[in-house]
Amino acid sequence: MTGRTARRRVLRVQAGNGAGARREADPRADLLAVEEPLEIRLNGSPLTVTMRTPGDDIDLAAGFLAAEGVVASPGDIAGIRMCDENVADVTLAGGAAAAAEGLRRNFLTTSACGVCGKDSIAAIRVRARYDVSADPVLVSPAMLASLPGRLREAQRVFASTGGLHAAGLFTAEGTLLALREDVGRHNAVDKLIGRALRDGHLPLADRVLLVSGRTSFELVQKALVAGIPVLAAVSAPSSLAVELAEEAGMTLVGFLRGTTMNVYTGAHRLSA
Amino acid sequence: MTGRTARRRVLRVQAGNGAGARREADPRADLLAVEEPLEIRLNGSPLTVTMRTPGDDIDLAAGFLAAEGVVASPGDIAGIRMCDENVADVTLAGGAAAAAEGLRRNFLTTSACGVCGKDSIAAIRVRARYDVSADPVLVSPAMLASLPGRLREAQRVFASTGGLHAAGLFTAEGTLLALREDVGRHNAVDKLIGRALRDGHLPLADRVLLVSGRTSFELVQKALVAGIPVLAAVSAPSSLAVELAEEAGMTLVGFLRGTTMNVYTGAHRLSA
Repeated sequence: MTGRTARRRVLRVQAGNGAGARREADPRADLLAVEEPLEIRLNGSPLTVTMRTPGDDIDLAAGFLAAEGVVASPGDIAGIRMCDENVADVTLAGGAAAAAEGLRRNFLTTSACGVCGKDSIAAIRVRARYDVSADPVLVSPAMLASLPGRLREAQRVFASTGGLHAAGLFTAEGTLLALREDVGRHNAVDKLIGRALRDGHLPLADRVLLVSGRTSFELVQKALVAGIPVLAAVSAPSSLAVELAEEAGMTLVGFLRGTTMNVYTGAHRLSA
Repeated sequence: MTGRTARRRVLRVQAGNGAGARREADPRADLLAVEEPLEIRLNGSPLTVTMRTPGDDIDLAAGFLAAEGVVASPGDIAGIRMCDENVADVTLAGGAAAAAEGLRRNFLTTSACGVCGKDSIAAIRVRARYDVSADPVLVSPAMLASLPGRLREAQRVFASTGGLHAAGLFTAEGTLLALREDVGRHNAVDKLIGRALRDGHLPLADRVLLVSGRTSFELVQKALVAGIPVLAAVSAPSSLAVELAEEAGMTLVGFLRGTTMNVYTGAHRLSA
């Protein structure tokens, strides 16, 4: 069970029109997306468990810690060791250790102060190290419209299981730089960003991140922490996703379907 | 921002065929699903924060604690108070307090032992109080095929925002008993189950739970904790969702589209 897909026998049933149901007598093998827990440890101590599709687990651990504001460069990580196929142990270097203590405190007490909703929202925000509002990149609507097709072309697994979220990192001209898939959409983005971090590529200036589903607050936050100026999605954003993108000066595009799209924030980056 | 949807101006853009892009000059108001953090406290101490669509927050808190195995009946809850629009404080009664201590320990150290993957998986499982494998309910393929349409009919918000997950609780004959929507699919299920728990309706024997998206391990676990024998979904299950459903003796249906469906486990509950 270390692959991204697993075969499983399934019974296909068709509801009849008053004449009863038709069942395929021979159950066939169906492809499922693999889901397993990954425990992320900091210096040997358990920090969190995420349900993910196995693969790129070291990137996932790095990206998760980047999104939480603990690490920002390869030098913050002394090493990441898989001490088991479902356990990644991260050893931090230098100043990142202090940030990690804050993170652990957050996980202990939750990060929200709870005095009021506004404070809760403020408290769940991670301080971004990069100012994406200053990113001068321009993107064309035609390029944006081409991204979902490019992502699907590159997805070998999605077509067969229908059970994986995808995230793609593109240049401003629409060239696919990296693709990750996962049962959890947050994990797919963490894997992308974790890899970029480990390669010393943060901030991801001039880049476009495409996600296959909806855009939540957390996805905008992950893009922001990585310094990505343009976030596009096939489906709708949430209210808080739009609010955070606007505050940060990020371009947020949704409902990217066919040749049309909705631009929620940062429309100044769209070229004519 | 206490509603389930928020209006937001959006720029609609159509990519041109070489002739440049067309933009609608007057940005129109678009409906977005509201996403805000809910902090759940136990006896005044912060336990967790979930990103959710506001509404039915007391049910959400109760359902979350039910899924974690802390509460199982109305008597386990002395009271739930919204001390702020985004903070629910749960006061436990009697024996549930001890279970809560175990939960808090889990949140502190993570619930995974991390010795090996198998142990991690075992550790994330919550002990179910009900044996759904013994539930003799039968469901017809025609009834199952009708559920997605019935759910969509009942969804007022989904059609307008495209940004909400839905969960519906049905009788074995296909009558909709309750519907909840949320930006998080886990939250929609927690809200349904939390309400049933508070009304003293657990276990939900003979019931069918339908979710609008994919089925994860956690969704199967939530259904199991509530004693629901049949879980159906419009999209694919993960590998671990199927494994848990099989172990528990739950009927798990996926790809419920048109008149066809895939039955992954518990096919003996399908009537002819």
